[in-house]
Amino acid sequence: MLRIATAIVVSSTLLLAQSESVYRGFKSADSSTERDWEMKFRSIPSPANMKSYMERLAARPHNVGSPYDKENAEWLLAKFREWGLDANIETFDVLFPTPKERKLEMIAPTRFTAKLAEPALSVDPTSGQTNEQLPTYNAYSADGDVTGPLVYVNHGIPADYDELERMGVSVKGAIVISRYGGSWRGIKPKVAAEHGALGCIIYSDPRDDGYSEGKVFPDGAWRPPFGVQRGSVADMPLYPGDPLTPGVGATKDAKRLSLSEAKTLTKIPVLPISYADARPLLSALDGAVVPAEWRGGLDLTYHTGPGPARVHLVVKSNWDQKPLYDVIARIPGSTYPDQWVIRGNHHDAWVNGAEDPVSGAIAVMEEARAMAELRRQGWQPKRTIIFALWDGEEPGLLGSTEWVETHADELLSKGVAYVNSDSNGRGFLQAGGSHTLQSLVNDVAKTIDDPEKHMTVWKRLQLVRMARTPERAGEHANGDLPISALGSGSDYTPFLQHAGIASLNLGFGGEDGGGTYHSVYDDIYWYEHFSDKEFVYGRALSQMAGTVVMRLADADVPPFEFNSLALTIHRYADEVKAAWQSKHDEIERRNRLIESGALEASADPLKTYVPPAKEEIPPHLDFAPLENASDHLTRAAAAFEKAYTAHFAASATQSLAEKSFMTERMFIDQGGLPRRPWFRHMIYAPGFYTGYGVKTLPAAREAIEEKQWGDADAQIARTAQAVEREAQLIDSMTATLTP
Amino acid sequence: MLRIATAIVVSSTLLLAQSESVYRGFKSADSSTERDWEMKFRSIPSPANMKSYMERLAARPHNVGSPYDKENAEWLLAKFREWGLDANIETFDVLFPTPKERKLEMIAPTRFTAKLAEPALSVDPTSGQTNEQLPTYNAYSADGDVTGPLVYVNHGIPADYDELERMGVSVKGAIVISRYGGSWRGIKPKVAAEHGALGCIIYSDPRDDGYSEGKVFPDGAWRPPFGVQRGSVADMPLYPGDPLTPGVGATKDAKRLSLSEAKTLTKIPVLPISYADARPLLSALDGAVVPAEWRGGLDLTYHTGPGPARVHLVVKSNWDQKPLYDVIARIPGSTYPDQWVIRGNHHDAWVNGAEDPVSGAIAVMEEARAMAELRRQGWQPKRTIIFALWDGEEPGLLGSTEWVETHADELLSKGVAYVNSDSNGRGFLQAGGSHTLQSLVNDVAKTIDDPEKHMTVWKRLQLVRMARTPERAGEHANGDLPISALGSGSDYTPFLQHAGIASLNLGFGGEDGGGTYHSVYDDIYWYEHFSDKEFVYGRALSQMAGTVVMRLADADVPPFEFNSLALTIHRYADEVKAAWQSKHDEIERRNRLIESGALEASADPLKTYVPPAKEEIPPHLDFAPLENASDHLTRAAAAFEKAYTAHFAASATQSLAEKSFMTERMFIDQGGLPRRPWFRHMIYAPGFYTGYGVKTLPAAREAIEEKQWGDADAQIARTAQAVEREAQLIDSMTATLTP
Repeated sequence: MLRIATAIVVSSTLLLAQSESVYRGFKSADSSTERDWEMKFRSIPSPANMKSYMERLAARPHNVGSPYDKENAEWLLAKFREWGLDANIETFDVLFPTPKERKLEMIAPTRFTAKLAEPALSVDPTSGQTNEQLPTYNAYSADGDVTGPLVYVNHGIPADYDELERMGVSVKGAIVISRYGGSWRGIKPKVAAEHGALGCIIYSDPRDDGYSEGKVFPDGAWRPPFGVQRGSVADMPLYPGDPLTPGVGATKDAKRLSLSEAKTLTKIPVLPISYADARPLLSALDGAVVPAEWRGGLDLTYHTGPGPARVHLVVKSNWDQKPLYDVIARIPGSTYPDQWVIRGNHHDAWVNGAEDPVSGAIAVMEEARAMAELRRQGWQPKRTIIFALWDGEEPGLLGSTEWVETHADELLSKGVAYVNSDSNGRGFLQAGGSHTLQSLVNDVAKTIDDPEKHMTVWKRLQLVRMARTPERAGEHANGDLPISALGSGSDYTPFLQHAGIASLNLGFGGEDGGGTYHSVYDDIYWYEHFSDKEFVYGRALSQMAGTVVMRLADADVPPFEFNSLALTIHRYADEVKAAWQSKHDEIERRNRLIESGALEASADPLKTYVPPAKEEIPPHLDFAPLENASDHLTRAAAAFEKAYTAHFAASATQSLAEKSFMTERMFIDQGGLPRRPWFRHMIYAPGFYTGYGVKTLPAAREAIEEKQWGDADAQIARTAQAVEREAQLIDSMTATLTP
Repeated sequence: MLRIATAIVVSSTLLLAQSESVYRGFKSADSSTERDWEMKFRSIPSPANMKSYMERLAARPHNVGSPYDKENAEWLLAKFREWGLDANIETFDVLFPTPKERKLEMIAPTRFTAKLAEPALSVDPTSGQTNEQLPTYNAYSADGDVTGPLVYVNHGIPADYDELERMGVSVKGAIVISRYGGSWRGIKPKVAAEHGALGCIIYSDPRDDGYSEGKVFPDGAWRPPFGVQRGSVADMPLYPGDPLTPGVGATKDAKRLSLSEAKTLTKIPVLPISYADARPLLSALDGAVVPAEWRGGLDLTYHTGPGPARVHLVVKSNWDQKPLYDVIARIPGSTYPDQWVIRGNHHDAWVNGAEDPVSGAIAVMEEARAMAELRRQGWQPKRTIIFALWDGEEPGLLGSTEWVETHADELLSKGVAYVNSDSNGRGFLQAGGSHTLQSLVNDVAKTIDDPEKHMTVWKRLQLVRMARTPERAGEHANGDLPISALGSGSDYTPFLQHAGIASLNLGFGGEDGGGTYHSVYDDIYWYEHFSDKEFVYGRALSQMAGTVVMRLADADVPPFEFNSLALTIHRYADEVKAAWQSKHDEIERRNRLIESGALEASADPLKTYVPPAKEEIPPHLDFAPLENASDHLTRAAAAFEKAYTAHFAASATQSLAEKSFMTERMFIDQGGLPRRPWFRHMIYAPGFYTGYGVKTLPAAREAIEEKQWGDADAQIARTAQAVEREAQLIDSMTATLTP
């Protein structure tokens, strides 16, 4: 106990010392100047401005292809220019299907037709803008007109289908109904189709974001009975962006795939519905009672089916091309104009999108306005800063992906870092990204005030982690707070996982829950009643992300740090080894149970039970290359740090600056991940079967998780090569520092 | 893997060998004779008979004091006599309150009056016997007429009140509503009153035994909307039996307490209600949203309150004395007529009670009939066998407790063992009891066929345990399957925990869930549609319990075994030490969090959060006496086993037989447990705050769990003395065996 208390004191003392110390990547004099500019910067972002921007941007529905989407882009452009920034709009042409026909009816044992509509609420002025609202649908669903028995599949992830198989339930020829959650939504129709389903319904169960969680809108923040979560179901873990132009920018004259060649469209029709529409369907199911964890919050017995409910599902889209408007502003760099620090957030929404994405976009705007103001006061970054307000994030990271693909060659040599945000709210700092930037995130977080509590956002996050996992309080009390690894779900993906540019995703949240995500109710009324209504966390986001951007752009050498990276990769390697062991033990144990007859002996003979088949015991794998590379990285990082501490103040910086941001590029393997070459980062990727959820060391980890024993050694070796490339580059950076 | 597979083979071989080996406690020739009689015995119990008994016993409501309760007792007596057994009825006079007035209404913010009634169902012929049904109520609730704001308290256990305190919610002056579960029901009003509540409502949430679990009655086994769980709320962890005659038999002229002196009556009025009646109340609550684990299965947001719902609760009872009819039959012992093996199950029900208790009582009847038949064929047990069908179990183990208290002196010298059952159903063997009988339970279970699967009930239980905890498959594969420790909730309590007679509780279950417990729907229609409708598990229970009884009654020396006991007590001692460590670490960690401000830092300022106060760090305790005693017991048990193996065949048995069953008596401490001297067993007790759930080494464990640091060393020492007495008696038994 004393040990910990002491550690906290020491850490506070360090913090004090640190706030007066020289910033990483800066020579001493430059650091003092930087400190002054950053303090000036942080005094500028204004909650009142943010509120007015939100009330403009979220005033009408502004999905891709809508009139207000274009109007917003033009207004944003005008704003940037009004502030004196060099700005323009880059356009792309992308496939963006919109609903032509949607029908969901139950035809047996009773008849019921789903409403598929979100009613206007009298207290909420924008909820009635039905003329401009996109109907409730899942973009990139296949067209289809299907009829079949209904089967409830819980989250619709592979493990759920294993469980259904144990209960003797097949979805072949059936229409599945899955609740949201447990994976990204696009995984649900993908896995359903792999199992032979004809169609897929996804609904929002009240357990997850409806009345089970709290009062529903407009009395509370949570999803009302007819609220529907729209969203893309393109197979983004394969590749994001325009389905017709994988790997290249969707410019006017780009070579395009035909619809039938586009691999990211779903194989079966998909439709999202509300819990009010789902209730009659679910209550008409019979068959096995679901496992306890599968139960939702409706007042009924959840059964698997199949049937007796039979449903008829029709989904047809207008398969049109629509224009994208990416709004781009630049502050040219003085010393290194060809080194780019990029800061982005999307501006398109599914409907009004006050929270998603406007709450984040307005922070970027205030950062841009503040830096324009600093420019007038004489500040200029060493590196070029690019502000980007992306269009088309919602359908599949379209605006960012097409921009990255279009500028791929430039980004390869110029991309220093990308700093993303998206929805923002009340609560704690949420930071994910490249672990070379973990140290920077920690340093900056120690300068940002939490608007609710009298402490820095760093201190609050540290205390929150201590409170949530008190048994690990010692860890939290010492050194940097770990940032999370990035999977997907926002515009950092093309930068990080395709282009190999070190990226961060920043925001605040964790306090204001809510259930209006991707519905007509994610609007100004909701945000100003149930989220950051004073826009003080909007200001904190501006301060946090803007300071990170300035630090990266102003440094003599961008402040990447490698001990955290090495430690993190070492941990991932341990996890992957543990994943093998656990898969091995699990299969061995299950085979033993199958042999002993224990599974059948414990099954109730009045219920269907199909025991699993025995499986091959996983062979031992060669983890040595990964362990050797990870050890090399650890040594390289330590040596660099030692050299940096000893010699940075006196050394020339240009060569080091140029090498520094190539460290993320080392993780790119040109062959990409198995099954999905667009994803080329060997450390971070969205999971093939999680969609947004990250898989670290993905080539190796997924080979093990999916029992690809024949390929696993090769994927471990490729992963090791990436880590080895990193270690070698760091060694060469150390050489530039050593006199 | 191989190791385990081999172990299973070895174990099967052992089983084969064992089934031909000499039974524990028998000389070789006696063992062969016993084997024959037991086989004859097991062929007699008849499912058809059991069905006919159930259809008689459950034909009408037969609660304590009802006409049919008495008729059933007389019919049982007639049956025993018809079979040629020496039988009689013993009567007692007990306090048994029945409802005079029950009212529950919400008076704000809207008005609602609870129905407090279970509707008749047309398909279910006995559900409409309203003239004879006891209304829905909790027996031994205080009379009261109270009005106050409503507060939802989850299960209403102490931890729930801690959580409420964190949310700033007090129940002082309020009426609490608690869901069933998490503790025995009588704990809920006890803890509510301790916290200043005026009244207590207990309801059956559909999450726990209603539609969340499966289809509701009469379409399925689970609780229908207006189904109510009746039940006693007397403070049974203080003492069971007649509240007016603690410690003595409630005979006609027993000295009785006045009502106001009876400590087991509740302090506040209590009423059980259905989820249909609870829904309007819960949906009228506001205040904090409850933690996720507190949510039930209703389609609403669960809030804590207090209010705005205000309720008016009236509970008044007729505080009458009612007669109890214990039906007792005897088969006299040949060699040791003054050594009693007692076999019991209650016959009274809350309403029709097809499952509870008739499904168990009919097994006892067939055992009695079968043994009467064996008597005619020439069998006579060495010890006296007593069959007991208890009255008044439901209100508080009345019939068994008063009988034990009345016959206390005789039982002290004569009680060899008590074998209990209660409700029975489909599934797996469920066995709990004195660990000196663990070996016997295992041996007998290896001779009983599971009626669903082609294996013994022992083998099935072993396989089920392997399937459920495959990571512990090795443990399950070797040696005896552990039996559980007994808390309370059925008639073994006075035998085991007051009189110190080795006890078992046997039954089958785990497959047919259900939600008709203590409602009018626990009836023949329900049982014959949703439980052991062929009565084959009824037969299995007769075979299992009857064989155990015969083995105990026929043995040269009752087959108690002490290595299992020593191992188990050693484990309990480790648990109690771990409980101290965990309490210590938890308090230390929490104090540290409080000091650091982490709890406040992580709280949402828009929600009330009251951080806990710092607590005294638990002092180190002296576990040495318990560890020394436990080690002594381990050595004593091993020495006895060695001597038994070497010399039992040749030794005289009378002295050993007389000592053997005194081993359970050694655990009795005449001072009893702190706060509740009636409970005198130092190894097993129901928890003071769990009610039915067992606390092993209860004096020591509860001192630690309840942070009674000043008393803990003394309680550890008393527990050690009990274990030491046991070790010494076993040493003296070893001496009788050693030539």
